[in-house]
Amino acid sequence: MTLPPLSRYLPILDWGRRYDRSSFTGDMVAAVIVTIMLIPQSLAYALLAGMPPEAGIYASIAPILLYAIFGTSRALAVGPVAVVSLMTAAAVGNIAESGTAGYVAAALTLAFLSGAMLLALGLFRLGFLANFLSHPVIAGFITASGILIAASQLRHILGIQGEGHTLLEIVGSLLAHLDEINLITVGLGVSATAFLFWVRKGLKPFLRLLGLGPRMADIGAKTGPVLAIIATTLAVWAFDLGERGVAIVGEVPQSLPPLTLPSFSPSLVSQLLVPALLISIIGFVESISVAQTLAAKKRQRIDPDQELIGLGAANMGAAFSGGFPVTGGFSRSVVNYDAGAETPAAGAFTALGLALAALFLTPLIHYLPKATLAATIIVAVLSLVDFSILKRAWRFSRADFAAVSATIGLTLLFGVEVGVTAGVVTSILVHLYKTSRPHMAVVGRVPGTEHFRNVLRHEVETQPHVLSLRVDESLYFPNARYLEDQLSAYAADKPELTDVVLMFPAVNEIDLSALESLEAINTRLHDAGIRLHLSEVKGPVMDRLKRSHFLDELTGEVFLSQHEAACRLAKAGRDGPRTVRRSARASSSVQ
Amino acid sequence: MTLPPLSRYLPILDWGRRYDRSSFTGDMVAAVIVTIMLIPQSLAYALLAGMPPEAGIYASIAPILLYAIFGTSRALAVGPVAVVSLMTAAAVGNIAESGTAGYVAAALTLAFLSGAMLLALGLFRLGFLANFLSHPVIAGFITASGILIAASQLRHILGIQGEGHTLLEIVGSLLAHLDEINLITVGLGVSATAFLFWVRKGLKPFLRLLGLGPRMADIGAKTGPVLAIIATTLAVWAFDLGERGVAIVGEVPQSLPPLTLPSFSPSLVSQLLVPALLISIIGFVESISVAQTLAAKKRQRIDPDQELIGLGAANMGAAFSGGFPVTGGFSRSVVNYDAGAETPAAGAFTALGLALAALFLTPLIHYLPKATLAATIIVAVLSLVDFSILKRAWRFSRADFAAVSATIGLTLLFGVEVGVTAGVVTSILVHLYKTSRPHMAVVGRVPGTEHFRNVLRHEVETQPHVLSLRVDESLYFPNARYLEDQLSAYAADKPELTDVVLMFPAVNEIDLSALESLEAINTRLHDAGIRLHLSEVKGPVMDRLKRSHFLDELTGEVFLSQHEAACRLAKAGRDGPRTVRRSARASSSVQ
Repeated sequence: MTLPPLSRYLPILDWGRRYDRSSFTGDMVAAVIVTIMLIPQSLAYALLAGMPPEAGIYASIAPILLYAIFGTSRALAVGPVAVVSLMTAAAVGNIAESGTAGYVAAALTLAFLSGAMLLALGLFRLGFLANFLSHPVIAGFITASGILIAASQLRHILGIQGEGHTLLEIVGSLLAHLDEINLITVGLGVSATAFLFWVRKGLKPFLRLLGLGPRMADIGAKTGPVLAIIATTLAVWAFDLGERGVAIVGEVPQSLPPLTLPSFSPSLVSQLLVPALLISIIGFVESISVAQTLAAKKRQRIDPDQELIGLGAANMGAAFSGGFPVTGGFSRSVVNYDAGAETPAAGAFTALGLALAALFLTPLIHYLPKATLAATIIVAVLSLVDFSILKRAWRFSRADFAAVSATIGLTLLFGVEVGVTAGVVTSILVHLYKTSRPHMAVVGRVPGTEHFRNVLRHEVETQPHVLSLRVDESLYFPNARYLEDQLSAYAADKPELTDVVLMFPAVNEIDLSALESLEAINTRLHDAGIRLHLSEVKGPVMDRLKRSHFLDELTGEVFLSQHEAACRLAKAGRDGPRTVRRSARASSSVQ
Repeated sequence: MTLPPLSRYLPILDWGRRYDRSSFTGDMVAAVIVTIMLIPQSLAYALLAGMPPEAGIYASIAPILLYAIFGTSRALAVGPVAVVSLMTAAAVGNIAESGTAGYVAAALTLAFLSGAMLLALGLFRLGFLANFLSHPVIAGFITASGILIAASQLRHILGIQGEGHTLLEIVGSLLAHLDEINLITVGLGVSATAFLFWVRKGLKPFLRLLGLGPRMADIGAKTGPVLAIIATTLAVWAFDLGERGVAIVGEVPQSLPPLTLPSFSPSLVSQLLVPALLISIIGFVESISVAQTLAAKKRQRIDPDQELIGLGAANMGAAFSGGFPVTGGFSRSVVNYDAGAETPAAGAFTALGLALAALFLTPLIHYLPKATLAATIIVAVLSLVDFSILKRAWRFSRADFAAVSATIGLTLLFGVEVGVTAGVVTSILVHLYKTSRPHMAVVGRVPGTEHFRNVLRHEVETQPHVLSLRVDESLYFPNARYLEDQLSAYAADKPELTDVVLMFPAVNEIDLSALESLEAINTRLHDAGIRLHLSEVKGPVMDRLKRSHFLDELTGEVFLSQHEAACRLAKAGRDGPRTVRRSARASSSVQ
């Protein structure tokens, strides 16, 4: 059988065969801990996405199971995450009012489209497209998103109305409704936020003081949100704060995830295509980096194209079970890993735990104040906000700095979709610009040697009637015409020129566009009375050139080495070698 | 003054200063010949673009003058050309009915938008974007366009109605109207076509037989279309064929180009944005290649960004003087050059000639049959049709072949806009795919030397606990993650690995994304118990790395040479060097 083994597309076949009791114990412990952590997180991200609270739990069940079957990471935990939830709210909020059936339906369609795109990218092995979102752009985008998310949750802390997808809209809306402020809600929200901040910083040392081991203390600290939820829910219930204007979660259906069917209305699909693509890319990029970081610790292997399939299946699952777009989350995956998860079965057990929660725990969260969920979100996302990327980028390169600051600024001013699109477009344009101008160097001989170096960096000898140009890049269509332009310019500027040598030691490939450019260069130089030579052509490139008529038409020769070219083209007596002296940097660089 | 000299943006200041009597003579002779050739060509391309005939002449006057001021080519003749006229018809035909005022207004807007885009691309020096249209894609597009154009003109030869922008639509429409065929029109059209084909092949030898010099014979042969026009116009006039169903040009206003104002209605502009961009790119690519070919013959210099400004100004001129989109044409430019044009003043004189024609000759073409114009177009465009590109591409590379055949097929099936868009998108995707997977080679030592070569191509020694990977490309965001993926895979597959050496002799640049990838690789390898080393890092790259904390965090060392790395990492006694033998190609390539 020459097909790839089925286990490549179904990694479960690989790890499932070797599953044993010790893996089971590790997975089970991890699942219990992650389940406890995921309940508040799922509810909170559902709120952020504008969905009913139970949708957050549903979005964690089927996706986790499907990822366990198709994904390659042993520890990745899939479900709603902050940035993707914010992007969902931005995309679906343009189409329907939050809280309506149309809103929920559009979120299902968005999850379906995102799942379909991820699957398609995976099946066609197009995961490389995500590479075009550069690291600084992602960092800037996540920082700006964190600010937007935190700002958007302030209204729940203040107990007022509010909306908007850009920083100005959100702040403006908060100010407009400031008179509706509910002081009890503020009290609950601020206490919960303060408590959760303390949990992040202070609970772990406190648990260590109580005698817990470092790992348990770490895990215990992650249960802080559950404590906040229990305490505030009890407070609302005991003092009947719901009647006094505190917004609560309210009735939550007690059921397993429902079977849902996304809408395929053409107008809805066409409106959601671009958001779905952006969500897919951002989700994939976040998820793969978490997966690779965790896999490295155990020398496990992540297959990026199979990850796309895993995430695609997870989103499809969300679409058909009442969820919304999901991806691999950082904090839940780290907790899963630290708690000892050994295989994706931990995810399956987590799904089971969440299903039980959906069946039996939902009545208990009736009195849960939304302010607590908002506090959970704010504390979680503020850890994503990191402006140090600006400083790093500034110090490292101005181009990267421009990309980061544009992404941050545009995301805050115009929302996530404009921000991330601008980031991608900027990155690709900068990339196209750079590759369309490959590095080329006019070279001359280092006196007394057979070496040829850049005339701008070294003291070398050149001959006025010979131009030797080293091309430091493969030649293909984005840069082929640049070579034409450069040689036209040299030919026009140097009337004494009779020979051009293109030195190809770094040319690994030539495509048909570059071949045609070389033919055009050959003809044009011939018309200008100049011969064209090549030197140091690699074997595969030579093979390819032989498949065309270029070598027959070449007006000059193909030299094995640049030294040979220089010797043969030297016109003894006419004008001897001329030494070009520049402020040659005594650089230690390997040229 | 540190600004660039004004003559960079106004090349006329450069050549105008040195203008003399000999240049004047050459330019004048060329202008007379080009004017005679342009009259039928302009009328014909106006017909192809769906515009009134006089628009073709108008589109040649102001654009030629403006190009003469702003363009850098000495010989380029700007005006309506076949492919751009076809694209105009396709774009404007979607918006209004040919022959209506709305159609003419939309064509003006299209010319304006195209001019504005070309100007913007030139001012921001974005001409490199045109490079992403690869040569094979252009060749395929022009061949397919030639077929579409020829097919679309058949209806004028047959004297029937017809429409459509794809091959199936055109042929279907012809068949549907076949019963309306007008035999007199067919007689005129077929004779004119046959005569023009003979002119292309036979007139030149015939003129030589009559004793003309080769250059004059060549130029004489270009006047064939004028002869065909005179003969058929006289026939229609003498036998009153217009009354017998032969479609004639009819009333043409006798005037200089009018001052026109394009419409800026937002809905029109938004519909024409994409077509205008495609027309701009195709027009620029065609024009620059003609300009460079002609400039090379006299060692003149073409500045691609300034060419964009010249063509932008020309299209602006067309928009405000009753024209439609224009660009530098191949045949007219070659005739201009061959006839002895020395400066852009030849263009100015041509414009004068055409203005006189617009004023005084238009009554003479009242009886000109449209079939003759169609014959002119068919004969001209069939010379563009060249399927040999398919064979060339097939032999040269499968990727190029796929791009060409897709472009040809999609253009014929779905029209010019889909075709050229698909060509651009395919080219860019293939490019992104290739750059996202840079060439990397695991290397080993050539026994007895200090040289390191690809283990797949050479007989070399490696050590099982050391992986030496040579990266043959600068590291930046499109390929940074690929390096992460590859190293994760190696680390997962080789349990005995303790040291990884990344060999950077070909890494010219590292951006922030790649730096972060290197940091992630360093951390992940560390987690897996593997040290990361670098070797042969170039000076500028080293400088850049020093601006970050990467070198402090690097778990291994930075070696000046790969040889030094191998010596230091060799674990004498544990396991000696192992010789990897492969079917090493005894290649003569310079590696």
